Amino acid sequence: MKIAVVGAGAVGAYHGVCLARAGHDVHFLLRSDYEIVRERGFEIRDRGNTFTVPVHAHKTPEEIGGCDLVLIALKTTANAQFPKLLPPLVGAGTTVLTLQNGLGNVEALGALFGAENVVGGLCYVTINRVAPGVIANLGGTRLWLGEGDGGAPRERTHALVKMFCEAGLPTEAKNSLEETLWKKLCWNIPFNGLAIAGGNIACDALLASPELVELSWILMREIQAAARSRGCEISDEHLQKQFDVTARCGAYLPSSLLDFRAGREVEIESIWGEPLRRGTANGVSMPHLETLYLLLKTLCRNREIRN
Amino acid sequence: MKIAVVGAGAVGAYHGVCLARAGHDVHFLLRSDYEIVRERGFEIRDRGNTFTVPVHAHKTPEEIGGCDLVLIALKTTANAQFPKLLPPLVGAGTTVLTLQNGLGNVEALGALFGAENVVGGLCYVTINRVAPGVIANLGGTRLWLGEGDGGAPRERTHALVKMFCEAGLPTEAKNSLEETLWKKLCWNIPFNGLAIAGGNIACDALLASPELVELSWILMREIQAAARSRGCEISDEHLQKQFDVTARCGAYLPSSLLDFRAGREVEIESIWGEPLRRGTANGVSMPHLETLYLLLKTLCRNREIRN
Repeated sequence: MKIAVVGAGAVGAYHGVCLARAGHDVHFLLRSDYEIVRERGFEIRDRGNTFTVPVHAHKTPEEIGGCDLVLIALKTTANAQFPKLLPPLVGAGTTVLTLQNGLGNVEALGALFGAENVVGGLCYVTINRVAPGVIANLGGTRLWLGEGDGGAPRERTHALVKMFCEAGLPTEAKNSLEETLWKKLCWNIPFNGLAIAGGNIACDALLASPELVELSWILMREIQAAARSRGCEISDEHLQKQFDVTARCGAYLPSSLLDFRAGREVEIESIWGEPLRRGTANGVSMPHLETLYLLLKTLCRNREIRN
Repeated sequence: MKIAVVGAGAVGAYHGVCLARAGHDVHFLLRSDYEIVRERGFEIRDRGNTFTVPVHAHKTPEEIGGCDLVLIALKTTANAQFPKLLPPLVGAGTTVLTLQNGLGNVEALGALFGAENVVGGLCYVTINRVAPGVIANLGGTRLWLGEGDGGAPRERTHALVKMFCEAGLPTEAKNSLEETLWKKLCWNIPFNGLAIAGGNIACDALLASPELVELSWILMREIQAAARSRGCEISDEHLQKQFDVTARCGAYLPSSLLDFRAGREVEIESIWGEPLRRGTANGVSMPHLETLYLLLKTLCRNREIRN
């Protein structure tokens, strides 16, 4: 299968390399890491094993041309570039798969290429880009796929699941993509958000603050209500589990906090803005999320300006 | 009149010195500035004129003894010290006047000395303690007094108004102390709060952020609703005026932000906590204030710990 990987940060690079090693014809669209990856390939540090994988590196989508699968792992702050980056890669029969954070991505892609050609994926990973062209995977990976148009998984999505599994990436098809996205937001909205707005702190400091724990619960309840208004059920056990998992993470730094600290753009709209808009559009009151969203927007913009 | 000034920061020192210069028998209860004030008096820099005023400085309330008027200008974070500091100063016929920020102060004093003996005051000033024993007043002052038990001004309160005016401190009696306190909170809650939670920024940066301006409006509407539930009417014009006044202040640093930056205790409960509790106790929904309160509590505690 001919595959393009757009946005070869940690997630894109790791998944693309696994597919290349499984024998697929994988092409990486690169920007800042283009020179080093073209010369040396990707260096993968995978749970103790380090290996180097030569790959096809490209600077423009035209060089790659039409593909069977386009795997998108750009930061959502770059989604405005879809119309420029993607059309050369997409033809009749191309499946567009986004592994991006938060809400609004499958819809943006569906508007360009038809919702029926879009698949959304959600990955639970601990993968970092530790240097240009160097990717470290610290633990197991998990990938969930669902249809961009909200329907039950199509045959081609089951085929993608099989392909990822055969490439060593445990993957499942899910009946409701949006439900899985809302469930992940139960973590991302409070923990990414309060790590920044609660004083630029790691997860252990967040959990040590009774006020931030209280606020996390309140935010999760708002998310639960918004998800329900969209037909997605999130159990109380799922909410509790977010705290249990986080308690085991110690001084973990959420990815948005890393972006914030580095003065990079934070994925404000897909993680906080779009969930707020979907909930309120359905008449769900989300005032705590609104406050957090407004604070994050100004905190992150001022941080980027200073950087 | 024998007067004790408890808490001789900028506001207490300036008002006490004015009363002393007008011929009253004023005694200052001092802590950190005791030595320097006892030796040199207060140096007052008043709109271009600098003068030094020798005063009665004391280290304990027992040294001062019973007074006709006890003027309290402590930070509200020190209110737990009332039962230790105040009883030696208060006898039959003593009026206790608090010039402190926010809500809850007259009630705490009323519980100790009877609400009918408590007067609340609100000062609009630009007075700073620029060094130990040195107080700078940059502009005009305005003082509003009202009864601690919520009633119309008593005769002794009109007498206090006269006394302050004669000491060069323009003062008025107000029919509802609580209404004047809520009106001031329309400034303090958003501008002191968002200067901290919005990224440790001055008022001009706050007004330059569309998100923080939006959030200020939302917070003011919640305050307006809470005040209304307590029988206190705040007009929309009053809300708009807070923005107009602030726009003229340039890079002004709200007092809570100064406390925060210096790692001093911030007056969280009197400015944010007590208004939130009063509103919600009356069934008023204040979720944006709740979010701000919880964030400030953790931000300020972590800042104090680091300091």
